[in-house]
Amino acid sequence: MEMASGVVADKEEGMVSRLWDWFKALPGKIMSKVVELGKKTKKLGEDDPRRIIHSLKVGLAITLVSLFYYFEPLYDGFGVSAMWAVLTVVVVFEFSVGATLGRGLNRGLATFLAAALGFGAHHLASLSGKKGEPILLGLFVFLLAAAVTFVRFFPRMKARYDYGLLVFILTFCLISVSGYRDDQVLHMAHKRVSTILIGGFTALLVCIVIYPVWAGDDLHNLVANNIEKLADFLEGFGPEYFRISEDAETDKSFLEGYKTVLNSKQTEESLTNFARWEPPHGQFRFRYPWEQYLKTGSLTRHCAYRIEALSGYLNTDTRIQQRVCGKLEQPCLNLCSESVKALKELSFAIKTMTTPSSANSHITKSKIAAKNLKSSLNTGLCKGTDLLEVIPVITMASLLVEVVSCTEKITESFKN
Amino acid sequence: MEMASGVVADKEEGMVSRLWDWFKALPGKIMSKVVELGKKTKKLGEDDPRRIIHSLKVGLAITLVSLFYYFEPLYDGFGVSAMWAVLTVVVVFEFSVGATLGRGLNRGLATFLAAALGFGAHHLASLSGKKGEPILLGLFVFLLAAAVTFVRFFPRMKARYDYGLLVFILTFCLISVSGYRDDQVLHMAHKRVSTILIGGFTALLVCIVIYPVWAGDDLHNLVANNIEKLADFLEGFGPEYFRISEDAETDKSFLEGYKTVLNSKQTEESLTNFARWEPPHGQFRFRYPWEQYLKTGSLTRHCAYRIEALSGYLNTDTRIQQRVCGKLEQPCLNLCSESVKALKELSFAIKTMTTPSSANSHITKSKIAAKNLKSSLNTGLCKGTDLLEVIPVITMASLLVEVVSCTEKITESFKN
Repeated sequence: MEMASGVVADKEEGMVSRLWDWFKALPGKIMSKVVELGKKTKKLGEDDPRRIIHSLKVGLAITLVSLFYYFEPLYDGFGVSAMWAVLTVVVVFEFSVGATLGRGLNRGLATFLAAALGFGAHHLASLSGKKGEPILLGLFVFLLAAAVTFVRFFPRMKARYDYGLLVFILTFCLISVSGYRDDQVLHMAHKRVSTILIGGFTALLVCIVIYPVWAGDDLHNLVANNIEKLADFLEGFGPEYFRISEDAETDKSFLEGYKTVLNSKQTEESLTNFARWEPPHGQFRFRYPWEQYLKTGSLTRHCAYRIEALSGYLNTDTRIQQRVCGKLEQPCLNLCSESVKALKELSFAIKTMTTPSSANSHITKSKIAAKNLKSSLNTGLCKGTDLLEVIPVITMASLLVEVVSCTEKITESFKN
Repeated sequence: MEMASGVVADKEEGMVSRLWDWFKALPGKIMSKVVELGKKTKKLGEDDPRRIIHSLKVGLAITLVSLFYYFEPLYDGFGVSAMWAVLTVVVVFEFSVGATLGRGLNRGLATFLAAALGFGAHHLASLSGKKGEPILLGLFVFLLAAAVTFVRFFPRMKARYDYGLLVFILTFCLISVSGYRDDQVLHMAHKRVSTILIGGFTALLVCIVIYPVWAGDDLHNLVANNIEKLADFLEGFGPEYFRISEDAETDKSFLEGYKTVLNSKQTEESLTNFARWEPPHGQFRFRYPWEQYLKTGSLTRHCAYRIEALSGYLNTDTRIQQRVCGKLEQPCLNLCSESVKALKELSFAIKTMTTPSSANSHITKSKIAAKNLKSSLNTGLCKGTDLLEVIPVITMASLLVEVVSCTEKITESFKN
């Protein structure tokens, strides 16, 4: 019995001391969490300082719009409807000018159209008498909501007008339904439209005037950088494969960079959709061919798929390499360096919006290097070597040759 | 002079007749556009009938909520605030239960927290007197809006709480700012929260009770179908490569199916995020490991990248094939068929949520086939054939072997 109680006491003591330990460690844990969060926040801001500026811009725009509430003369004009202005700023203000403009135009146009239609529906329903009105209104709301929701599934509508369709349903319901109560529907619709216009213009003004972020610029840089990432990989691939730089300390991040290219499709597409809303600015003139970027981007991705396959051969057995690769080293390095030059030239040409003057000659040279590589394979490998052993080397070479043809296609996409 | 006027008359006549032609063609053009649109709509509905049901559900939920306006006793309780219920339904109702729940919870929780904080801010500001109040309120709004906007950039927050953060800014601004005018802030906040709750519950109820669409099911099917698409390609690849079926009329869509797998990452990620919100249902129990799908999906994509590289070799010169491929045909077809069996078994195992019983043995067999393929390459090709000619064949075989190892990795991902 005494022993048992001793065990219980021990247990209790153990629990208490563990609890105490946990409590003692708590401030440290919280501190380390806070420090970690601070580091993450700092990194997020450093990675793209435009994020900090954007946050401040949003704060400014909302504060500007909420002035409506503070000043009597402004407030008296709109009353509670002033909140629609605040709501519009919060909902419409996006990171890039294109996204903000797209949302703003969608919201403005949809509100206007839906308000008109809602007013019409309300008027039509009111003709059918006190009893029929709610039934008819309910029917209108049901049909319109169902139809417009279905339209949102059309891929083209979804890409550019999704938000507008949502606002359309919203405003139609608000105007037609609340119209049943309030006889001043027209007045209400007018106030809603004008406050939304004020909110939208404030958001747009702040978005465009203070350090604007153009989706078009982002798309432009994304496509150029993606091509450069492929070049980075190819530049590092040769030395890495042939173990020229044995230094284990060197930074090998270039071998990972291309991986973001593999999944860049959706980002490119949404940036293109935003860019289409943007007015001409900087180097981007009226009716700038944004689809061109999608084409180049898609070819870049195809090249990245080949490179992904190629990267699987980086860890080929060293002994085989030493035996057979000596003869291939020079042609491979030549091929890589010419492809790299072509790709870098293309990336530079996109960035500076010039014509890639020497890319074609680099492509020609890299095709010659590809031919040399093939003939070295033929003369160097087939004499007595065990084919089984050199299959990975042949595959590597063959994929490199494929990369050259992908590079050629990317170059060609610039000509149109 | 007469001739000139004759020319003018001719020109005018030409214009008139062209205009007339255009007018005559107009009804036909419009009709063909309408027919085309009708076809597209029909296809959209047939591809996924859940879209039609979803549209009707949205209509129903909005009509239900707008009953508030029609019935006196309901309306008297909430007044104009009833519009928040309509607004909530329109904004919260998404295609899948997970997305709707996620948005609903985000909106509800964010509104509640922001209303509390907004009320606090309003109270704090009101202590500083008539003059200091707007300044202090403006400062609060600016700081909070900027800070929360920045938080939206954190990838984790963006994935799950983006909408909640937006609503948080919105409600905080509305409550704290309009509080400056209306002394009944608490009353207003209470009405806003309760109408949002009513709207959210209506949306959720309709979403879950009538033909629910579970994001978890969609994710489940997507991953299983993606694996099957790889199997389809491999199944068709062998006969296509070795020209077994010369029939040009056969459907070759199986060779394109895998392409959607290449860009499936973002869809999988967003479905996973939605699925995490969903309550246990059907075969998916509490704390179901949704991340597992992301792992399998990512390995499937890696396999698809190899297949993309492989597909480039489908159009190898026929003469080479006839000379050298006879020896490779059987090993290649064996390898493909075993890989196909393994992949189909895995896809079936996901669909039925069973353990893939024989996948391992198929993997072992396909590895044996890979070995056979390599040795046939060695014995069959290296005697006298021009290596230059058979490089594409070797590469094809090598990539096929890679596909086997990718398949093995997918199988292994099931064991954990």
